[in-house]
Amino acid sequence: MKKFNIPEWAYEFHGHKCPFMPIGFRMGKLAMEKLGVSQSLNHEMHVFSEMGIAHPQGCMQDGIMASTGATFGKGMIEKLYYGKVAATFWYPSKGAVRIFLKNEFADKLTPHEFFKYRKQGVEPSEIPEDVRQDIINMVLIASEKELFTVKMLPDFDYKPVKGSFLKSKCEQCGEYVFERYLRVREGKKVCIPCSEHNNSEVTMPRPK
Amino acid sequence: MKKFNIPEWAYEFHGHKCPFMPIGFRMGKLAMEKLGVSQSLNHEMHVFSEMGIAHPQGCMQDGIMASTGATFGKGMIEKLYYGKVAATFWYPSKGAVRIFLKNEFADKLTPHEFFKYRKQGVEPSEIPEDVRQDIINMVLIASEKELFTVKMLPDFDYKPVKGSFLKSKCEQCGEYVFERYLRVREGKKVCIPCSEHNNSEVTMPRPK
Repeated sequence: MKKFNIPEWAYEFHGHKCPFMPIGFRMGKLAMEKLGVSQSLNHEMHVFSEMGIAHPQGCMQDGIMASTGATFGKGMIEKLYYGKVAATFWYPSKGAVRIFLKNEFADKLTPHEFFKYRKQGVEPSEIPEDVRQDIINMVLIASEKELFTVKMLPDFDYKPVKGSFLKSKCEQCGEYVFERYLRVREGKKVCIPCSEHNNSEVTMPRPK
Repeated sequence: MKKFNIPEWAYEFHGHKCPFMPIGFRMGKLAMEKLGVSQSLNHEMHVFSEMGIAHPQGCMQDGIMASTGATFGKGMIEKLYYGKVAATFWYPSKGAVRIFLKNEFADKLTPHEFFKYRKQGVEPSEIPEDVRQDIINMVLIASEKELFTVKMLPDFDYKPVKGSFLKSKCEQCGEYVFERYLRVREGKKVCIPCSEHNNSEVTMPRPK
């Protein structure tokens, strides 16, 4: 039986051994294969993860970052808040693909002892090593077909926000602020906390 | 001169050698030292990064994740969109600390050849190795005092959103969805894309 290989540093980065980091790692590898690309060293691949907040299995995203190089720090992965174990991978001039963890595979994992511990509130690093290794092995030996639904998205289009190096000092606290986030208060250019403008206010783009 | 050490895998994860990943790595290390904790294996430390979108230097966040273990996948780091090279680190029962990259150190880096390349649109991995190594060395040999403004936040309080394992299948597309993200359309429990509800709508918490 062929066993998929995950580099040890990906576990070190993630902090613990769990099944979802490897699932994400494999999703990322498969997406790169489908798009014919390798790890993004800079700002090539964009990932739109369908994960949200306050539910498990987000660990998948650490695996995606580790395999694709589309990291949070480089601004290449964001959440869509749909609550699904799925992500769309877009690589300029190569196209896009959506990968979803099959319900059937999720159902296969659910009865595993690993989740009995998790549902009792036991943190992953506290779960016995053999239990963790066993569920990780289920992920590593599964075929891609068993794991994922893959859909190429020929019409996918995305235009990243244009970046800027411009920054200046907040005229109140003196800290450097990138221009996009400067606000105005009593005529002074200030950072958002110094502006004291309501930070839950919303601005919307004008409809086209 | 003492030189700070960054593990090679942190560069591998990040994808390229640049000064801001190491700056973030050092921020995270310093925060852990101030709070008296080590790398978070599970869901201990929370990071509130003041970075936003469409400006450089976000790479810092990959360094923060690598040193603290507060990763995006585990839901432990989020952006405040203030456009500053700063973050607040909160560890339950240990407290919180804000670390800001001093303007003076930012000004010291600015004239470096590395940024001449960056401003011409050259991606980090394409910049000559000696140029990159030179600016990284500036970060690795700097003292903490030269790099950062550190402020302990004794009154900081935060209540993470309570998690849930509950999920069910979207009655339209059949894919598993975590409950928080189920919506209703024509009486059926559906995922957000199947709901076709306007996805730029906003809901607000009732004022207390």
